[in-house]
Amino acid sequence: MLTNIRNTRIEWCDCDPAGIIFYPRYFEIFDTSTTVLIEHALGMNKIDYLKAYAFGGHPLVEARARFRLPTRFGDEVAIETALIECGRSSFKIEHRLSKAGTLMVEGFETRVWVIRHPDDPKRIKSQPIPPEVLARFRRSGG
Amino acid sequence: MLTNIRNTRIEWCDCDPAGIIFYPRYFEIFDTSTTVLIEHALGMNKIDYLKAYAFGGHPLVEARARFRLPTRFGDEVAIETALIECGRSSFKIEHRLSKAGTLMVEGFETRVWVIRHPDDPKRIKSQPIPPEVLARFRRSGG
Amino acid sequence: MLTNIRNTRIEWCDCDPAGIIFYPRYFEIFDTSTTVLIEHALGMNKIDYLKAYAFGGHPLVEARARFRLPTRFGDEVAIETALIECGRSSFKIEHRLSKAGTLMVEGFETRVWVIRHPDDPKRIKSQPIPPEVLARFRRSGG
Amino acid sequence: MLTNIRNTRIEWCDCDPAGIIFYPRYFEIFDTSTTVLIEHALGMNKIDYLKAYAFGGHPLVEARARFRLPTRFGDEVAIETALIECGRSSFKIEHRLSKAGTLMVEGFETRVWVIRHPDDPKRIKSQPIPPEVLARFRRSGG
Repeated sequence: MLTNIRNTRIEWCDCDPAGIIFYPRYFEIFDTSTTVLIEHALGMNKIDYLKAYAFGGHPLVEARARFRLPTRFGDEVAIETALIECGRSSFKIEHRLSKAGTLMVEGFETRVWVIRHPDDPKRIKSQPIPPEVLARFRRSGG
Repeated sequence: MLTNIRNTRIEWCDCDPAGIIFYPRYFEIFDTSTTVLIEHALGMNKIDYLKAYAFGGHPLVEARARFRLPTRFGDEVAIETALIECGRSSFKIEHRLSKAGTLMVEGFETRVWVIRHPDDPKRIKSQPIPPEVLARFRRSGG
Repeated sequence: MLTNIRNTRIEWCDCDPAGIIFYPRYFEIFDTSTTVLIEHALGMNKIDYLKAYAFGGHPLVEARARFRLPTRFGDEVAIETALIECGRSSFKIEHRLSKAGTLMVEGFETRVWVIRHPDDPKRIKSQPIPPEVLARFRRSGG
Repeated sequence: MLTNIRNTRIEWCDCDPAGIIFYPRYFEIFDTSTTVLIEHALGMNKIDYLKAYAFGGHPLVEARARFRLPTRFGDEVAIETALIECGRSSFKIEHRLSKAGTLMVEGFETRVWVIRHPDDPKRIKSQPIPPEVLARFRRSGG
């Protein structure tokens, strides 16, 4: 199974007047973690894998998070990301954000593989994941 | 049941290089809708209801969204928000974001009522929802 | 001179742990105001004027703001936007954000007109403003 | 003179439908750089230096940026930050963001030292910079 760990810091700009992280920021953090996971799997930066597969991205059909404990500005956190399921044109990602070993937030994403619409490059269209990508998504490591 | 509808527009700043909304922005939109719902229920702005109840906010323990169709910059959308469940210290909110009558995104939030921690005003602490707030949350209308 | 006024509300999600707006949010507000100004001038939504002129946007070469008084969540504000200068391929915009008639923030933007690069649609390239756009930018009203 | 360099990466979530960074994100990046600069100068995390000086933050009275070249998602950038002027209650910061040695963006901030208002902890009030902070701001290093 494809996995990745990265570290980041919760910043002042992520926090709200209650002094804790404004929760949509977690989804931004998770989105970046998913990008990094796929970049590692494909051995290319996102800008290059979008070009390589004439593709528009991997938008979400569902997102979910459980917030166990709040984080605050200055908190150093680790995000463990794993590809937990991979279908024909969609895949599921799980994120576990922890601080000093304590699980703070869990995130779940269901994403689809989309390409630029052939008739209008501004539109997107879901598509089977290319076989070579599937192969890399399904081998262990990362 | 407490409900509210508000209108907004998806802006350039909400959208990503795929030309569609960057999904964490939906959670920002939902958060504002929840604020507006509670402001209407309590007849006070958030800044005032936080003062009135010595309270730190209504952070989330769980958030979820289903993205049915993408929205893009310039899209005029309506968000219908409803308080669908109200417990002793937590409550559930549902959001339905639609464009020209078509449901685009559904959002679900489970929130808790928190006050400033008596020993440290920078920390927060969950607390039963005050009876007068409960009464307003549970009556119909909005 | 092209001008526009729009109203918005500073929201919880715009504010930081000091309880006031996190200042980069003003630049987001100004960016949306500029979009609205140009949409009114051209009689088209941004998504349509980008298509009409095969163009990539109007990125900034310089931005500046003076923060006179802080705004907080719940503040209803008005933003007056004016095109104050228009050159061959660049233009200047001024924003005045006020609350109940009191000027809170002034913003200044210098922007250039860019099109998609002919050799690579992912890159952008500065370009003279089309004559019909210039004509609309330079007539009074809005 | 107090200086600091940090590295970050421009992410998908920072970019707009033109595929380049949405410029207010630079001000977020600069804000974090200023925090890191002051943390290093004072030897404390922001959350701790706010407590140590009963203080509300260092909001801006003026911000400015010159955007020389656009950055895009995946770009690794370095931000050099320097305290270039320090008065009695205000100070000026300069940021130079570069990619592979090429200067992309310059940022300038004028900030004031504010404390929580004695009559209302939700309000802020400008204040002379404490002497021990001034001493650390004015010595060289970082």
